[in-house]
Amino acid sequence: MFAPAYLDYNATTPLEPTVLDAMLPYLTQQYGNASSRHEYGRAARKAIDEARQQVAQAVGAHPTEVVFTSGGSEANNLFIKGAAANLKAGLLAISSIEHPCVREPAKVLAKQGWTMHEIAVDAAGRIDADDYAAVLDQQPRLLSVMLANNETGVLQDVAALAAEANGRTASARAWFHSDAVQALGKIKVDFRALGVHGLTVSSHKIGGPKGAAALIVDKRVEISPLISGGGHERGLRSGTENVAAIVGFGAACEIAVQRLDTEPQRLRALRNELEQGLAQQGARIFGSAVEAVGQSAMRRLPNTVYFSIPGIDGETLVGKLDRIGFAVASGAACSSANPEPSHVLLAMGVDSEVARGAVRISLGAATTQQQIKDFLVALDGMVVQLKGLTALAS
Amino acid sequence: MFAPAYLDYNATTPLEPTVLDAMLPYLTQQYGNASSRHEYGRAARKAIDEARQQVAQAVGAHPTEVVFTSGGSEANNLFIKGAAANLKAGLLAISSIEHPCVREPAKVLAKQGWTMHEIAVDAAGRIDADDYAAVLDQQPRLLSVMLANNETGVLQDVAALAAEANGRTASARAWFHSDAVQALGKIKVDFRALGVHGLTVSSHKIGGPKGAAALIVDKRVEISPLISGGGHERGLRSGTENVAAIVGFGAACEIAVQRLDTEPQRLRALRNELEQGLAQQGARIFGSAVEAVGQSAMRRLPNTVYFSIPGIDGETLVGKLDRIGFAVASGAACSSANPEPSHVLLAMGVDSEVARGAVRISLGAATTQQQIKDFLVALDGMVVQLKGLTALAS
Repeated sequence: MFAPAYLDYNATTPLEPTVLDAMLPYLTQQYGNASSRHEYGRAARKAIDEARQQVAQAVGAHPTEVVFTSGGSEANNLFIKGAAANLKAGLLAISSIEHPCVREPAKVLAKQGWTMHEIAVDAAGRIDADDYAAVLDQQPRLLSVMLANNETGVLQDVAALAAEANGRTASARAWFHSDAVQALGKIKVDFRALGVHGLTVSSHKIGGPKGAAALIVDKRVEISPLISGGGHERGLRSGTENVAAIVGFGAACEIAVQRLDTEPQRLRALRNELEQGLAQQGARIFGSAVEAVGQSAMRRLPNTVYFSIPGIDGETLVGKLDRIGFAVASGAACSSANPEPSHVLLAMGVDSEVARGAVRISLGAATTQQQIKDFLVALDGMVVQLKGLTALAS
Repeated sequence: MFAPAYLDYNATTPLEPTVLDAMLPYLTQQYGNASSRHEYGRAARKAIDEARQQVAQAVGAHPTEVVFTSGGSEANNLFIKGAAANLKAGLLAISSIEHPCVREPAKVLAKQGWTMHEIAVDAAGRIDADDYAAVLDQQPRLLSVMLANNETGVLQDVAALAAEANGRTASARAWFHSDAVQALGKIKVDFRALGVHGLTVSSHKIGGPKGAAALIVDKRVEISPLISGGGHERGLRSGTENVAAIVGFGAACEIAVQRLDTEPQRLRALRNELEQGLAQQGARIFGSAVEAVGQSAMRRLPNTVYFSIPGIDGETLVGKLDRIGFAVASGAACSSANPEPSHVLLAMGVDSEVARGAVRISLGAATTQQQIKDFLVALDGMVVQLKGLTALAS
């Protein structure tokens, strides 16, 4: 038997113990409402201000550009719906591999007079340059392209895409948003360097608690709130602040940035070992082609492996792995109630039968080399068994 | 000197220690994303399902009627904006004493073709029957009347108001929503008995954590989500669930319901003692008239005292009390960044100068008789001092 191994960090991460330590005062003695004008309230406000600085620093933004929300889905919805509410309906372009919390708000706008275009990606999962140029020619008013894909880990050159969009005439300029939820803590994320107008980052993907995230937003963008009320977060997000979660998010940002010097290299080495083992079992690794094509620049997250083994169903494999203690994902975790093959793989031109075999492994702070070795041994046994069953059935 | 006393429970409450105990596993080992299909995910899903039952039971609803949100402001916005999105624009009527997180979404609708009417209240803070009847004659499509006011603690007879609205012809029927955030845990709240279509309750007002709340919603009401994405919460609220906060909310509901047998009586006795002391200092108690008018039925929350002392500014008093360790609120906590006098008091016909004197004291689980006695002694000294200053200045 193997020790259980959580290999699903892109779905969510364990809370860092020091992050919990930072949160606990706000779950015990420091319980004030940050809007209250007494000592309890001031302590809560101070803690939120500090967390805002930590988050801003982690993404190269100014604290006043940080709008705290309850999660990444809310932040993505806030930018897309909130900015659209202040624009004339027009063309909205998102990549064809966005998370549902970008695609679905875009579809909502498509029912309200907007034209939605999904920008094509190539077989490696990168934005198709021709389709992007064609989209820009049609003068979109809103663009959203994720920094790192949650399933494949493939990175987009958002800085170049945003520069291309921003370099146009003022009248043709679009607001450019990027969902960086999967990028933060795994690669350097810099709001200014990216040149985007909106950027989404989330706490629970980087060792922080669920319940906090942020939309980093250029103040030139006029945004209508989803949640109206007491006027919290500069009027962009009303509601009593989740102080403990925000404090935890800030603390997690600080840790994540510190670790950027060493942790990505460690994870990439583990991932390479994992991919070598998978290749020996005939696995196809989705998105890995970006690194063959690319120059020295990293083109994939260091922690993510997305693969399928011919003839083996992804769901079945995930279920069997789960029963012996390996937690991995089939397709995207957030849409795993949905039996459809991954829209990300379909957009990359992967055959839907092959896409049904997709399994995602995502590594993180507690992942060890032993876990990778154990995983490969366990997988090997399963593949032999499952292929035998397939052979018997055919 | 006095021991510090937190007397601002309507702003937020300390987390109950047993609630934190219930949450901690989900902040440590049980960190799964409830959408994940492995053991970690299933444990999270099971915890959310249990919390959903606890919340449903606390408010007399079915678990499938519970939609978890990040807070009461979000739940109120979800009902008002979300239901309106599926109705033809028409008349929206809210009481004139609603919390900003009901008023502001109503104002948003007023800019989108809806007509907003604020239902008058009488001097005691209760819905004016004539104005309400006149509103119903104009066939509103949406109604929102809070169960208990956050500032005065005055209760509305929501069951009767909803029955009046629901008793009309089908074509004239309106969706009736009630914000019960301040009522839960202080009086019995029963979704069925109230006969409303939407009901908002929140965790951090009842000894639970910030970051969780619920909209209880009649399934006949078609609601568009504010946050679109992975389809969580029956498609009404996408986003990775804040498992720990939801678990804490469930646990807090269970405790709050258990305490309903004894705690309101204890708090009412303390409040009466407090109000007697205030009366001796010439204080005017806002909303207390409802109990003189009323029959045996309780017409005010048992824990809330809202008063002003002639010639003394509320902000000044709150600041002085804070400096010696008494945490109380001036006006509504959530809008205390706003120097305007309370819109609740203005709606009750209180002169704006008198309204500027308003101070709210709200009691809770840890409030003791000694704290009340100490508070009255401290206040007495301050009033003497402040009145002396006023006399010198005039």
